[in-house]
Amino acid sequence: MAANETAPRSHEGTGVTPLSGVGSAVWYDPNADLELGEPPAAETVDPDAERARFEDARNRARAELERERERTAERVGEDEAAVFDAHKQFVDDPQIIDGVEAAVDDGLPAEHAVDAAFEDPIAQFEGMDGRMAERADDLRDVRDRLLRLLTDADRVDLASLSTGSILLAERLTPSDTAQLDSDRVAGFATIEGGRTSHAAIFARSLGIPAVVGVGDDLESIDDGADVLVDGEDGAVIADPTPDQRERAAAGRDVEVRSEPVATADGRSVEVAANVGTPAELEGAVAQGADGIGLFRTEFLFLDREAPPDEDEQFEVYREALAAFPEGRVVVRTLDVGGDKPIPYLDMPDPENPFLGERGIRRSLGPDADLFETQLRALLRANAAEPGTLSVMFPMVATVSELEAALETVASVADDLASEGLDHEVPELGVMIETPSAALTAEALAQRVDFLSIGTNDLTQYVMAAARENDRVAGLHDPCEPAVLRAIERTVAAGHAGDAWVGMCGEMAGDPDLTELLVGLGLDELSMSAVTIPDVKANIAAVDTADTETLADSATDAAASAAVRERVANRDHNRDSDPDSETP
Amino acid sequence: MAANETAPRSHEGTGVTPLSGVGSAVWYDPNADLELGEPPAAETVDPDAERARFEDARNRARAELERERERTAERVGEDEAAVFDAHKQFVDDPQIIDGVEAAVDDGLPAEHAVDAAFEDPIAQFEGMDGRMAERADDLRDVRDRLLRLLTDADRVDLASLSTGSILLAERLTPSDTAQLDSDRVAGFATIEGGRTSHAAIFARSLGIPAVVGVGDDLESIDDGADVLVDGEDGAVIADPTPDQRERAAAGRDVEVRSEPVATADGRSVEVAANVGTPAELEGAVAQGADGIGLFRTEFLFLDREAPPDEDEQFEVYREALAAFPEGRVVVRTLDVGGDKPIPYLDMPDPENPFLGERGIRRSLGPDADLFETQLRALLRANAAEPGTLSVMFPMVATVSELEAALETVASVADDLASEGLDHEVPELGVMIETPSAALTAEALAQRVDFLSIGTNDLTQYVMAAARENDRVAGLHDPCEPAVLRAIERTVAAGHAGDAWVGMCGEMAGDPDLTELLVGLGLDELSMSAVTIPDVKANIAAVDTADTETLADSATDAAASAAVRERVANRDHNRDSDPDSETP
Repeated sequence: MAANETAPRSHEGTGVTPLSGVGSAVWYDPNADLELGEPPAAETVDPDAERARFEDARNRARAELERERERTAERVGEDEAAVFDAHKQFVDDPQIIDGVEAAVDDGLPAEHAVDAAFEDPIAQFEGMDGRMAERADDLRDVRDRLLRLLTDADRVDLASLSTGSILLAERLTPSDTAQLDSDRVAGFATIEGGRTSHAAIFARSLGIPAVVGVGDDLESIDDGADVLVDGEDGAVIADPTPDQRERAAAGRDVEVRSEPVATADGRSVEVAANVGTPAELEGAVAQGADGIGLFRTEFLFLDREAPPDEDEQFEVYREALAAFPEGRVVVRTLDVGGDKPIPYLDMPDPENPFLGERGIRRSLGPDADLFETQLRALLRANAAEPGTLSVMFPMVATVSELEAALETVASVADDLASEGLDHEVPELGVMIETPSAALTAEALAQRVDFLSIGTNDLTQYVMAAARENDRVAGLHDPCEPAVLRAIERTVAAGHAGDAWVGMCGEMAGDPDLTELLVGLGLDELSMSAVTIPDVKANIAAVDTADTETLADSATDAAASAAVRERVANRDHNRDSDPDSETP
Repeated sequence: MAANETAPRSHEGTGVTPLSGVGSAVWYDPNADLELGEPPAAETVDPDAERARFEDARNRARAELERERERTAERVGEDEAAVFDAHKQFVDDPQIIDGVEAAVDDGLPAEHAVDAAFEDPIAQFEGMDGRMAERADDLRDVRDRLLRLLTDADRVDLASLSTGSILLAERLTPSDTAQLDSDRVAGFATIEGGRTSHAAIFARSLGIPAVVGVGDDLESIDDGADVLVDGEDGAVIADPTPDQRERAAAGRDVEVRSEPVATADGRSVEVAANVGTPAELEGAVAQGADGIGLFRTEFLFLDREAPPDEDEQFEVYREALAAFPEGRVVVRTLDVGGDKPIPYLDMPDPENPFLGERGIRRSLGPDADLFETQLRALLRANAAEPGTLSVMFPMVATVSELEAALETVASVADDLASEGLDHEVPELGVMIETPSAALTAEALAQRVDFLSIGTNDLTQYVMAAARENDRVAGLHDPCEPAVLRAIERTVAAGHAGDAWVGMCGEMAGDPDLTELLVGLGLDELSMSAVTIPDVKANIAAVDTADTETLADSATDAAASAAVRERVANRDHNRDSDPDSETP
């Protein structure tokens, strides 16, 4: 920055993509113009015409939802797209339709009838428990969509923002991001949200500069202002200096490295991509991923009436292996549970779904048939392609579960052999997501080729703090010393058992933590593709001995704040310019 | 047993109290006679008379529920009594009342109208998520109560069982146990349920011989049969031999020891009682408790419109201290959360309440005022009585939380000093319930006088398996090696930090595990009063070196089954009679 220039005010938030963008601020308030005013006199309303208007709005809503669902599934993944199915159900809910038609018959225009008919269901859901209360938000979303379609409300059209817009909003819902044209938006910033919010995941999937969780402070930026969104430093700057604009416009100053990297002193660390759909494979290659460290397979099973058969899965796994003929593709077997329901499976919805029947618990229980089919497809795909297939099991908590899963692999291999089908048993591994797995990692490592730490779940279980609960968000921090110790323990146990140890949670893709993770001894880091170049650059810049000193200091810290401070000080020391002035 | 006598068939289940009882079997099927048959012709029904019958049934239901609520709160505790409030709300639900009255107006008798009017609400709840689905059970319970009152259905009256009855049932609900006259029932056995089911907790609270989870096998015992319920061995025996009857009638062969105990080689282990209401203090003294290892304080806050004030709490804490003038009373500060809602507190009901804002998280957040008031009352009570008061904080996950709690204690002490009020800072401790606390136990122990391991929660978090979810019940086992390692770690960390280490979960009161727990190095075990004599006897019988060998072998086991086998083999070796025949 030029000396003596007054720095413009910077609003701090959480940067979720290591990208910067500059553009013109567009505030997005989805419901700004939905005030209906008093209804006209009943005798002036033609009920037949109003029924027809309502019917038309429902048809258009259904078509919109279908489009948004497809876009989201394609761009972000099936998990994030599922909400649109719930919305479609509400559009066709007989109770709501009856309510609207009755109100129309009583002399209300369609929009007032919709407003009235949603009131009771929303109130009912609001009075209910956790997840049901969230459905009140979904109902409001559907109501507002119908109202917009009925009133042609004049709102910001996310699909046709001017090129170079910086979107500012309280939050962005799946419905909102589904409409965003990522080629036109230069970045976004939201008042709410964290690194794992929907908007953050969306931004990383699409490579959009984004800062979330800025707080009400963001409201001081006016519509139309020039804004810089710096996703690397987590800053939103109104009226940036020419110098700042220039640096942002220059784009990322980090090169994409397609070759594997090592630390300055030569220790190799594999850097791989997490992908949720085959569509993301191309981006992973483009960002220089060494392979896939987490290939989620839920997309194969979600949003359909029956599970995919063996051949359909075989083709998908082949495709993934073909994308990395010289790399490794780590496939996670089906990981569903109370929080990711699937219509054709017997899935009760317990009070604490995160502590229920998920992952391998289902594969060894009610979903045993699916598990066998998936393993058959995986073993066959491994024989059909040159790349290295690895298969890992999610939510393992006991050695007995792992042994049962390994026995299933062996029996599937026997079956394929006796059927004369080409197959090859892949490298096998365990996800370390439960505290129990971390506490018994020695015994697990002795039985497999690798361990992969899933920090999102591990953190929520170690800290007993659900990742979607804002009231305990402060505890859901992978930099908590207890989580670092669980990681440290897992790495030591893995290496003692000759297993390599990777990490595939959000933590792995946070460039600020690369040095710490290298110091903790991880052999592989797997992340959203967009952060790969930064993490590779960071790995190449560090020296193993230094990273270990940092890791020791971090695991000994008494609090996550102290960990982050130590990490930041290291960055500062490394980045600092010896000529710079002390403030 | 007499030689050559044919042994009667024994049905195996889970013994939940170390007591035996013999009596006459009474099968309890609450809804056996609730078949209504076809309704009479509508013109023969007098709607006014039927409305009056319904009104009368509701009045009687309300009175019954009030009585049962009070009995349960008094005998078992407020937690278990809360369900009756929900039932009362359903009795007065306007939607249901309207439904019944509409059906009566259509010509149905009151009982058929009740049956019809509950149908839709039950189906609605059944279609909902976890906790809401459970409300369908509550609705059925209320419907059946009204039907019984309307039809004078001839069912087993639990309140007037003949003295010496052995109750057999599929399960016993809170409504059922509330009516039981514990002086008349000689024991009970149920097809369903585990060590922590409502019926098991009830049996331990009241000292009733009980075996749960016997399975359908129990149905082979006929009404009126002579039955022995052996809660020590977990066996239900029809037509017991004279010898077996005699031993059961002789009562427990374990003496109550009012003095502290030590292992055979002289290592002292404190044995204390868990209590949930002041009414239980007397039983704790009677069973020889050295003190109270867990004094729950939720009863003070539940089922009222406003929180208790400082003086009310002061009196309650004094009373507890007075019961053990030479012992220790460990009070746990208020431990509420999404799973234990309180009407006057701001408590959202999140999707995963066990991973939400519970325990100290609330005391340092929304309930900070309550926390200060409670600490004031505790510090004052400690100065007013000669016994040793200890105070512990629930659900601590980080050192920062503990430090904040300790600062609050210090500031409360300052306030009391400046007000000139007598007070004394108690011994302070932390509950080890989160994996995080176990993983950072060294740092926690350095800051307090003691650690107390809450195995129920610790197990559910370490294993990521909710304790109320039957689908993962197999994982919710404190004998899982990962849980034993967390305990082992906590004990070592506590002792390194000069803190004593206790345990107050259900595990501590399982006499089969006493030797293992002594071997793990615990300084104190706290449990339901009824199991204290057995645990004291077990402690006195073991030698520390042997227990340590067992503990080492258990923590090295790969599975909980292997742990239980090693524990059982030890018991077998100790109990075996060298002259007995090998089968």
